[in-house]
This record gives sequence, C-alpha cells and structure tokens, in this order.
Amino acid sequence: MGDDAGEPGGARRRGRRPAGEDARGAILEAARTELAARGYDATSLRGIARAAGVDPRLVHHYFPGGKEEVAAEALALPLRPADLLARLADGPPEELGLRLARTFLGIWDPPERRDVVRGLLLSAASPDGASLLRGFFGEAVLARVASLARAPEPALAASLAAAQLLGVALLRYVIGVEPLASTDAATLAERLAPALQRHLDGVDA
Amino acid sequence: MGDDAGEPGGARRRGRRPAGEDARGAILEAARTELAARGYDATSLRGIARAAGVDPRLVHHYFPGGKEEVAAEALALPLRPADLLARLADGPPEELGLRLARTFLGIWDPPERRDVVRGLLLSAASPDGASLLRGFFGEAVLARVASLARAPEPALAASLAAAQLLGVALLRYVIGVEPLASTDAATLAERLAPALQRHLDGVDA
Repeated sequence: MGDDAGEPGGARRRGRRPAGEDARGAILEAARTELAARGYDATSLRGIARAAGVDPRLVHHYFPGGKEEVAAEALALPLRPADLLARLADGPPEELGLRLARTFLGIWDPPERRDVVRGLLLSAASPDGASLLRGFFGEAVLARVASLARAPEPALAASLAAAQLLGVALLRYVIGVEPLASTDAATLAERLAPALQRHLDGVDA
Repeated sequence: MGDDAGEPGGARRRGRRPAGEDARGAILEAARTELAARGYDATSLRGIARAAGVDPRLVHHYFPGGKEEVAAEALALPLRPADLLARLADGPPEELGLRLARTFLGIWDPPERRDVVRGLLLSAASPDGASLLRGFFGEAVLARVASLARAPEPALAASLAAAQLLGVALLRYVIGVEPLASTDAATLAERLAPALQRHLDGVDA
C-alpha cells in the first residue's frame, strides 16, 4: 500500500522491506494469496507487489517471465511454462505426442512431486481453485500446445491431449490404479503417444 | 452387532429396525461410512448390514448386485456398473471407443451431476478416498472395459482410456476449460473416439 520505492536487485532497501531471497519469498507468498483470492485472470503483478510490500520492478527482476512465471512457481510447478514450448517444438511434428508424453511424465514422475499433483487436484474442487487453474493452464500450457497442433481445431485438440495426461496423473499419482501406477515411464510414454498424436493431428476415425 | 434377524422385503420387522425405503437409506448411509472408513476392498456387505442394523439378506434384497451396486449408489453414480458392460458390448468392436465416449458423456453431462464429479475428485485427494476409488473403479469399471479391449495389455489399455475420460471430466465439468467445456457432447464423443479406440485396440504408433 503506497509502497513503491525499492530497487530491483535490492540495491537500495529500507529496513522493513524484505531483501534478496526474503523478497522473493514474500512475492511468492503474496502471489499464492492473490491467486487464491482472485483467480489467475484478475491477479496483476502490481497487486502481487503491493501485497508483498515491494516495488513492482522487483517482481520483474525476480520473475522476468511475468505473471505466468510467478504463478508457475507459486503453484510449485517444476517447469517454467516458457520453456515448455521450446522443449515440445524441438523435433519432428509427427513425434509431438511422444515428446509431450515424455515431458509430462518427466516433470511429474518424481515421487516428491505427488503432493503437488494432489494439491492441484484439491484446488480444482473449489471454484477459486478451478478459476486459477483454468486461467493459468489455459494461458501457460494449453495455448502453447495448441500452437504446435496441426488439427483443424487446435484449442480443442490441445485440451483433449491435456485431458489424457491429466487423467493419467490422477490415476497414476493420486488414485494409484494398476497397472498404470507402476508401468515404467518410458513404456507409458510410448503407449500414450499415438493417442496424443491423434488428437494433435486431428485425424478422423 | 448381534442383529441378524429381519427378513428380506421387510416381511417381519421389529420396531427399532428401519423399514422399506428407510432400511434402504440406512444401508446406503452405512455403506458411505464403511467405504470411507475402510476403503472398497475391506468393506463387506456383512459389515454394512451390521452398521445399518439390518439383516445381511436385506442388503442383498435391495442391492442384488452386491457390494459393487451398493457402492455405486452410495457414491451417487447414475449407472449400475453391471449395466455398463452390456451397453459397451452392444455393437461392433471397432466402435467401442465411440460407445465408451458416448456412454461416459451421457452419464456425466447432465448439469446436476457435476457435484458428484466434484465430490469424487475431492475424495481422490485423501488416501481413504483414493483407496475407495481405486478398489471400486478397478473392479466395477476398468475390469469391464478391459474385458472388451483387444490390446495385448488390456488392463493398461483400459486404464489409459479411463484416464482420457477422467481428464475430460476434470477439464469439462470441474475446471471448465474452453473449448472443451462447451463443445456439444456428440461432437466431443467423435473427437474422443479415435484416441480411445487406439488405446483399446493397442495399435502401435
């Protein structure tokens, strides 16, 4: 509130303002609160800065990718959304489904990330959490996957592919349905790839 | 506890025992409690009857499909699992994916069922809820779909198809991602069918 001094990098700080990693932590904490209260679309970097008691330029300094990057880290996502596109685009289009499956499993298979999946799932059950996921994933993930899809309706294609992966996450990490839970990631990626590719290519039955 | 009198159909009731629809409701209430506390595998019809204060034969009378049928109704599922197989099996194998998509969307698309989806989702986030879903869906749904799959690993194929549909439910009914949320069910079923069919047929990329 009315707190708009402070320098990116913390060159000139006042005592009551958090410094360095503290400021970064305060920004993430404020982002979690703002995102939970307002949803993704209505949350602004300026609002996050205000809630954290830091200059908006400091938010830009720590999170050059903007709101999307703050949200990804506030949600404890282990990949910067901006890196996702580069990773998916790097290879032949007919293997996009396989790259998508491998990237997804590579991100979420580490056991220590299961709490994140469970937390995201829980948050989806509340209207605010659903709004947050809708805004964030729509912009940060689905739009990027859609930009690579060759299907005539790329947004629908991307959401169908995302649905496939999200359902795998639920059954594999949260509910623990066999044999899906214990199939090794490499095999699973190969089993998933044709269905994902089919969505992304938009091939009719 | 020690309460093993009572007749199926309620022909001979004692005053303190619930009668008719009351007994049915008491059984469902007890089933919800038992399933939540023990999970699906460890819940028995005898235990449900005991908790409801009715004779086990009365449970069989109201739910001839046994534990699976009690659980389906306790979970507010709008289709008896035993009917699922008949519906899916009724048609050419190469259209199984389409029938599966249509059946799924037909069950869950009515707006009044969204709370059930949300509730199931929430329950999956707790270990007990996950155990319940794992046991119930594994037995009541996945095993039936697997019995119709032509893929070399039918159980894995069925769980991948189920993951696709579960993810659609999450994005369409709970999170509300567009355009998936507002695509009409008939179109969506057609878009889903090839991917589902691919899983169920086990065709390699």
